[in-house]
Amino acid sequence: MKYRVGVIGGGQLARMMTVPAINLGIELKVLAETANSSANLATTVVGDYTNLETVLDFAKGVDVITFDHEHVPLKILEALEAKGISVQPNSKALAHAQNKLVMRQALEAIGAPNPRWLAVSTPSELDGFIAENGPEVIVKTPIGGYDGKGVRVVRSASDVSDWFEPSTLSSLGGKLLAEQKVAFVREMAQLSARSPSGEFKAWPIVETRQKNGVCSEVLAPAPNTSSELVAKAMEIAKLISTSLGVTGNLAVEMFETADGKLLVNELAMRPHNSGHFSIEGSTTSQFEQHLRAVLNLPLGDTEVPEAAVMVNLLGVSDEVDFVENYPELMRSFKSAKLHSYGKSPRIGRKLGHITVIGQTHESALATALQARAAILGLQ
Amino acid sequence: MKYRVGVIGGGQLARMMTVPAINLGIELKVLAETANSSANLATTVVGDYTNLETVLDFAKGVDVITFDHEHVPLKILEALEAKGISVQPNSKALAHAQNKLVMRQALEAIGAPNPRWLAVSTPSELDGFIAENGPEVIVKTPIGGYDGKGVRVVRSASDVSDWFEPSTLSSLGGKLLAEQKVAFVREMAQLSARSPSGEFKAWPIVETRQKNGVCSEVLAPAPNTSSELVAKAMEIAKLISTSLGVTGNLAVEMFETADGKLLVNELAMRPHNSGHFSIEGSTTSQFEQHLRAVLNLPLGDTEVPEAAVMVNLLGVSDEVDFVENYPELMRSFKSAKLHSYGKSPRIGRKLGHITVIGQTHESALATALQARAAILGLQ
Repeated sequence: MKYRVGVIGGGQLARMMTVPAINLGIELKVLAETANSSANLATTVVGDYTNLETVLDFAKGVDVITFDHEHVPLKILEALEAKGISVQPNSKALAHAQNKLVMRQALEAIGAPNPRWLAVSTPSELDGFIAENGPEVIVKTPIGGYDGKGVRVVRSASDVSDWFEPSTLSSLGGKLLAEQKVAFVREMAQLSARSPSGEFKAWPIVETRQKNGVCSEVLAPAPNTSSELVAKAMEIAKLISTSLGVTGNLAVEMFETADGKLLVNELAMRPHNSGHFSIEGSTTSQFEQHLRAVLNLPLGDTEVPEAAVMVNLLGVSDEVDFVENYPELMRSFKSAKLHSYGKSPRIGRKLGHITVIGQTHESALATALQARAAILGLQ
Repeated sequence: MKYRVGVIGGGQLARMMTVPAINLGIELKVLAETANSSANLATTVVGDYTNLETVLDFAKGVDVITFDHEHVPLKILEALEAKGISVQPNSKALAHAQNKLVMRQALEAIGAPNPRWLAVSTPSELDGFIAENGPEVIVKTPIGGYDGKGVRVVRSASDVSDWFEPSTLSSLGGKLLAEQKVAFVREMAQLSARSPSGEFKAWPIVETRQKNGVCSEVLAPAPNTSSELVAKAMEIAKLISTSLGVTGNLAVEMFETADGKLLVNELAMRPHNSGHFSIEGSTTSQFEQHLRAVLNLPLGDTEVPEAAVMVNLLGVSDEVDFVENYPELMRSFKSAKLHSYGKSPRIGRKLGHITVIGQTHESALATALQARAAILGLQ
């Protein structure tokens, strides 16, 4: 007997799932887009995840299907489910991570804290929303956005006139999502996991710092955070995952407002960049937890140290590989734990991350930033 | 550019090297005996490591050759070296781990602490050694022994008359190794790593507990151990690895005697069962350190917590796989970190291990033993 998990998508999240799969003797199979994906070691099928035959064939050899990303069309997942294949999270839950309008509606229905929002299908509807909530608001494409793509700050509907083009709008489902531009004091993320049996475990909320819409640093647990806020964040995650039937990991990206409120920004139903610190910085890493959750195995503990800091390594060149800076990193930054995603370099591409566990966030962050500069050759 | 390491042997040590290889983006290739080996994920060639063509072909795609075990014939390694291929540890160093007589002679020459020993080629030589050092002595085959195999406690040369059969004796190199049966208070192991540049790092010495000649539990760092003994053990390891030109990991198995002396029992030049605790229980795991050392990269720190305990999981049946006890283990032993080697069950086979980090060795050991009983279904 062996537990067998099939992951659709061959990115760094699937790659990092490979490690707990090795430790626990779980057979991990990956359906990757290309042979040279980040998760190439566990790749058993290279193919198109929008092709039903490909996905059905891949699913034959595993006990459960889960994901490296949320781009698999729902109709593919519904077809798997119709054949009795276990999909975790299932298509009903995943719909909320694929479509931001579906998410806003559901969060409103269950009483989770949304910013003010509106589904807009015409420029005049958007201008009306801006008049009430402006001068600036956020407009998002309901589907297909990630890492800052599909998101714009606008002062007028004319700033997204391209998205209102009939063919574009129709491809996006006929509506855009307009959201209040929240005057937040910081961005945070609440990571948790839930199993089909209903067991739920959450890590303490973390602080996330973005650059150009992409996660740059994560401080875990979030510094200067009251126990009330920590409890409130877990409560929101539990409400969402239970109400929406999420299984596996759930990341709830949130804004903290000046008056100490949390507002939900985005949802992800898979391991998440905000949880990479947990590989070294928690009893159970988010990648192990996700595998345990989708297999309906008991979940692991989620204790964290005083201070863990994760910094992303984004490519600074299309040519230079950071591998040549390994000696300097390893010589000078003994506490920096490097994770490479095995990708070829490209400006702005997530190539890896570094985690530092420290006594304080200040010291861990300082070390992590210096280590990042060293490996990226920016010193 | 990519670092590329070739490992000969597809056992659990190669399997556990896969994890730091994923983390660091090192291309790990394994020459395994069978397609279904422990290290199957990283296996690129299935073949015979005693066949020069097979090994040469395997070596083409990597920067350095290293090992999961020490059974590769020296003449194969010498042939690789003659072609300019980097072999770490090299054939000269590895000779000491392959042949216990070569080891005893070398340790004596460099002044490392041996028990009393003698190379014996006739029964009467052995009986003479017994008369001086008996009533019981240890006899070892110089080559081919591991996990208690090739080792006997004898009172008379007639107890190893089979090994003195001319054909057997000749296959063993013409001599047996007789050793004083050391009246030890405990067995210990000193793990270290050395790179070709000469950098050396050691973990604190650990206590190892064997059952039937096979490692059963490891307590790290060794409890109730003076700082003098810790320093002395590191000194011995440094002397050996430097004098013998060892690169990569070196495990020195030792006896602690009643009068507080350390005597060398065995050497291994690779990751070692006594160092598995380091995966969770040290800044740098022994598997990462070995890869860094053989690649001549700067070595990592070797700090350890107050108490780490590792227990081996040996098969208790030829049929029952411990996978069915995962739910119980994961539910009841939150601090037990499981490592499966992905092997089919067999009585006495090393199927995996569990590590527990605790406040004290007593509490960590108690938890680890209970966790072992749970996963092996012995409760």
